[in-house]
Amino acid sequence: MFEDRKSAAKRTELSELGEFGLIDYLTKNFKTKNSSTIKAVGDDAAVVENGEKVTLISTDILTEGIHFDLTYAPLKHLGYKSVIVNLSDIYAMNGVPKQITIGLAISNRFSVEALAELYEGIHLACTRYGVDLVGGDTTSSSAGLFLSITAIGEAKKDKVVYRNGAKEGDLIMVSGDLGGAYIGLLLLEREKSVFKADPNMQPELDGNDYILERQLKPEARKDVIELLAKAGVKPNAMIDISDGLASELYHISTQSKTGCTIYEEKIPIDHQTFSIAREFELDPTTAAFNGGEDYELLFTVSPEDYEKIKDVAEFVTIGHVTDEASGIQLVSKDGNYFPITAQGWDHLKKS
Amino acid sequence: MFEDRKSAAKRTELSELGEFGLIDYLTKNFKTKNSSTIKAVGDDAAVVENGEKVTLISTDILTEGIHFDLTYAPLKHLGYKSVIVNLSDIYAMNGVPKQITIGLAISNRFSVEALAELYEGIHLACTRYGVDLVGGDTTSSSAGLFLSITAIGEAKKDKVVYRNGAKEGDLIMVSGDLGGAYIGLLLLEREKSVFKADPNMQPELDGNDYILERQLKPEARKDVIELLAKAGVKPNAMIDISDGLASELYHISTQSKTGCTIYEEKIPIDHQTFSIAREFELDPTTAAFNGGEDYELLFTVSPEDYEKIKDVAEFVTIGHVTDEASGIQLVSKDGNYFPITAQGWDHLKKS
Repeated sequence: MFEDRKSAAKRTELSELGEFGLIDYLTKNFKTKNSSTIKAVGDDAAVVENGEKVTLISTDILTEGIHFDLTYAPLKHLGYKSVIVNLSDIYAMNGVPKQITIGLAISNRFSVEALAELYEGIHLACTRYGVDLVGGDTTSSSAGLFLSITAIGEAKKDKVVYRNGAKEGDLIMVSGDLGGAYIGLLLLEREKSVFKADPNMQPELDGNDYILERQLKPEARKDVIELLAKAGVKPNAMIDISDGLASELYHISTQSKTGCTIYEEKIPIDHQTFSIAREFELDPTTAAFNGGEDYELLFTVSPEDYEKIKDVAEFVTIGHVTDEASGIQLVSKDGNYFPITAQGWDHLKKS
Repeated sequence: MFEDRKSAAKRTELSELGEFGLIDYLTKNFKTKNSSTIKAVGDDAAVVENGEKVTLISTDILTEGIHFDLTYAPLKHLGYKSVIVNLSDIYAMNGVPKQITIGLAISNRFSVEALAELYEGIHLACTRYGVDLVGGDTTSSSAGLFLSITAIGEAKKDKVVYRNGAKEGDLIMVSGDLGGAYIGLLLLEREKSVFKADPNMQPELDGNDYILERQLKPEARKDVIELLAKAGVKPNAMIDISDGLASELYHISTQSKTGCTIYEEKIPIDHQTFSIAREFELDPTTAAFNGGEDYELLFTVSPEDYEKIKDVAEFVTIGHVTDEASGIQLVSKDGNYFPITAQGWDHLKKS
């Protein structure tokens, strides 16, 4: 109390560990004590037993200046997106989200009308996805807007899909095109610079609705869970693509103790993503691997299950699961092999 | 997008509504859609059905500069307290907390060692209360420290106690002394001013350990739930005292459509709280009514149940439930009646 904190013996910067390293470091002493806790830290959502069903719980924070920029993110879209990113985590466990709570810290720079816009987006997402807002906390912040949403979902115990169940020989599938959200962000950032330099300049966003929507108003893949159930398929492993394909492949592979091989030519990339990436002189594949925020589902299925869903239009097969020693590999369009390293979307390292 | 937000037609300041008004305003259009949602916004925790049991969910945010001041709040205590305030909400539903998730936004002013201290406190609270840390999100903030904790608990469906069940003739009981946390805060704020004026001055905190601990390292009343269960008593209404006795009486009375009469001489106030309040020329009763953060449980029981617990040393009877028309009344030590108005701990109004 009242001590001079600068005199502390050792100071390790957060950037030295990064988000995943930091979480591992901080939570390594936590042992679970309740038999109802089936899965704690380390997957898209926590899993808690409730008779034949399980409760799935996921929390995500969105902070102003890090996850969103109100210069171009309308508050209504922000509210919508903040719900979606959490629902996506529940779907990634093969579960159905049912409730959310909202923690909101706001500076008095925001008006009641501004918050009403934010809640309009939250309301829209709740309505579309059949989710109830059941509580939360609203308080002041000394600066900026912080949104912390917790989603609660359910699944039958034997239907939950973890990150760690991939098996050698599984096919790797993804539910939609990748990289769009990141290229949309680059576009918005570019037009923001133009706008700041001259507020009379109108931003050039026409014709790029798709990638802007991928960034500003993404959807969660509720339909994928339904399609899988309809086909009678339970994936062996699943994760949502929030940090980029490279990061998600890394999580599935390390937790499943497998490797994987991905074919560059198979990675679905929308033509808008492709052409704007080229404008930025950026490899579209890099956007897919390291961009993040696409909120598609990435999953692995056995060859037998693959037969049941290989013709589903939404699903694209991008590779297969290998043994651990083979590592995570990309086969480029010209047939060469490259190791994939997870760069991800590491806010802590960037700050 | 890219619009001039200042030109918006109408601007209502958050301070015009306050926290409770704001939440009501923002959530009024949300209708619940899932039959499993038993109780949404409006109690200490949300209640979700799970067979014979229910899942209880509560979220609280703590923000730097509003809820805590790191000049005098050690990070370990802050971690501990951030868990406690959430567990308290689950106990207030007559439930048992089982899991928590942590949302953390931090600026790079914090080192890994500082966060390790914070997590040490979180770990200690989890261990003492038998709760598992099951997930969360760690990210950057552009300034300051934001902690959002969600607690998940369980209860048998017929054991859940809401705010709205108080009945005329019920006795009103509280689990411990009040006002201490607020007086502890005043003391810390005073010594901070002294310390800021001259960092060589050592703060005078000796002999006031009790009220400092009430402020910096409160406990949640797990034992109260156990004592009630042992006595075979289910309160008709219950709430935890986070915003001050006045505010909690207001919630129970309005939601139960009752009034209540509280006797000033019955309100338990510790002698340290009393003497330091006097130093500040503050009425100790005011600290109990409007201070907040005591995390005691306030509950109402029928006269029959009262007989079973009236000799429990921890429980103090402070009044009784009346009809709605009588309002919320305080009988002062000299026998006069005063209406009680909920001033509470309204961060939004103060900011």
